[in-house]
Amino acid sequence: MSLSGSMIRVIDLGGVFVFGLSGASLAARKGFDVVGVAVLAGVTALGGGILRDVVLGQTPQALRSPASLVLATLAAAVVMAAHGVVRRLERQALVFDAAGLGLYAVTGAARTLDAGLGWWAAVVLGATSAVGGGVLRDVLAGDVPIVFRADSGLYAIPAAAGALAAAACRQQGVLSPVVALAIAAAVFAFRLVAWQRHWTAPSARVDR
Amino acid sequence: MSLSGSMIRVIDLGGVFVFGLSGASLAARKGFDVVGVAVLAGVTALGGGILRDVVLGQTPQALRSPASLVLATLAAAVVMAAHGVVRRLERQALVFDAAGLGLYAVTGAARTLDAGLGWWAAVVLGATSAVGGGVLRDVLAGDVPIVFRADSGLYAIPAAAGALAAAACRQQGVLSPVVALAIAAAVFAFRLVAWQRHWTAPSARVDR
Amino acid sequence: MSLSGSMIRVIDLGGVFVFGLSGASLAARKGFDVVGVAVLAGVTALGGGILRDVVLGQTPQALRSPASLVLATLAAAVVMAAHGVVRRLERQALVFDAAGLGLYAVTGAARTLDAGLGWWAAVVLGATSAVGGGVLRDVLAGDVPIVFRADSGLYAIPAAAGALAAAACRQQGVLSPVVALAIAAAVFAFRLVAWQRHWTAPSARVDR
Repeated sequence: MSLSGSMIRVIDLGGVFVFGLSGASLAARKGFDVVGVAVLAGVTALGGGILRDVVLGQTPQALRSPASLVLATLAAAVVMAAHGVVRRLERQALVFDAAGLGLYAVTGAARTLDAGLGWWAAVVLGATSAVGGGVLRDVLAGDVPIVFRADSGLYAIPAAAGALAAAACRQQGVLSPVVALAIAAAVFAFRLVAWQRHWTAPSARVDR
Repeated sequence: MSLSGSMIRVIDLGGVFVFGLSGASLAARKGFDVVGVAVLAGVTALGGGILRDVVLGQTPQALRSPASLVLATLAAAVVMAAHGVVRRLERQALVFDAAGLGLYAVTGAARTLDAGLGWWAAVVLGATSAVGGGVLRDVLAGDVPIVFRADSGLYAIPAAAGALAAAACRQQGVLSPVVALAIAAAVFAFRLVAWQRHWTAPSARVDR
Repeated sequence: MSLSGSMIRVIDLGGVFVFGLSGASLAARKGFDVVGVAVLAGVTALGGGILRDVVLGQTPQALRSPASLVLATLAAAVVMAAHGVVRRLERQALVFDAAGLGLYAVTGAARTLDAGLGWWAAVVLGATSAVGGGVLRDVLAGDVPIVFRADSGLYAIPAAAGALAAAACRQQGVLSPVVALAIAAAVFAFRLVAWQRHWTAPSARVDR
């Protein structure tokens, strides 16, 4: 069974919630007020998907029904309520971010192919929708975007690989919900292992 | 009488001019050259509206006629000419910004409903068009976005409330030009009072 | 012979490659890893054009065929391979950036007119597509956007002038490939001379 539009939507909503938790956690850690927490949760949760949909020339999913907004707001509320008992939210934000990374890479690639673009666009736009919310979050919060941080472990690579895998499966007609979630889980696992083991990509040698 | 498309356009142009003054004032305060003043005036004046129109899948109003560009350029010229006699432009930028906030919240919400989206989208996109230009201005100028500054008083809350009020009136068919301007004025007044009295939203408690 | 769509595409691809070199050079200079070099090359090379196409309501050229992605990746690879023998990449990045500035100003203006918008929109959107990739590059890399740097020489002015010239020629039906490249070369030369001679635009006088 191939991944249906409504199943893509459900997986997308999972990404919205976990990215919302990631943005809200960063905002709480920075001491932003409740508005800042809500805004950063919303930008992180919806930014990558809105970016993808706007580039595809579609009305953003996030605005077609209240579901995404409710989930992003819920994520902000959970963090506002819970972070008093959590000493540091850094690790939580990272885990949530990795989960969103995998989910968005898969749905972004599938949506791009469904819009009639080629697999190369699916890789770029899948990775962009996975990475975009986090990059917007970091730029707005005044941090170096996660995609450029050398010490943050690999980030864009698993997203692009997941998008490529999802696009290949989609074109073969074998991107079932189980396969989609398996790819997302592989991205998630790879990202967390890369972070824990401090894997880094080669950097440009600078001869001084 | 309900708010017509051309009346929305006129109110929008008022927002363009005051946001243009706000962006140009910040650029002058930062010592940018005349190009920087013009660019920051343009980004602040047109950014929120272009963001809204692009998300709605429409050709941006700001590019359909020269009116917006002329007004943004005029705002930059006024600031270039006048700021020699004004010692500090901080207060002026804030007042202009608050005026734009109210005007864009109302027109952004009305345009979103007119594009066929729901009231939740009207609140988000009304607030985004009101806040977007200022956030782009701050990101480009290297400041913390106003929406995250704890000491800047409430900012996104009156914008979202104004968008909600405008959307509700629009759906009831009672968003006349007078009602639209009244909502914009309420947003403006609330924002300035909140700033003057240092009202703040609750922030996430951080247990250290 | 007027500038055909396929000729615009070829000139655009030239801009993609030189902007890609510019972004990759900055990333290498900042010590980013290979992913950061590729991402910044891609953002700089494709950002201005995608911004332009999204505002025009079109599927971005950069995603319709793999050519742009291949060229941006190639630019990143060239910089990764070559920068070991180059001591400092600052001057190279500047020269490539100036070349992209001229090429994108011309094609951005032509595409905007072809989309049915007026010459004022062609100037704004031509300059935006020329300047946009570099501004995105600087915002993501944490630098002050080049368009605001007083010591960077004139930047937006030749882009806007080139877009205006291209729009005027296009409307007169005389924007042949030779004229297009001549305008792009004039923008390139003006930009480099302005930089070398430290020409600056007047800045707003600040009375303290």
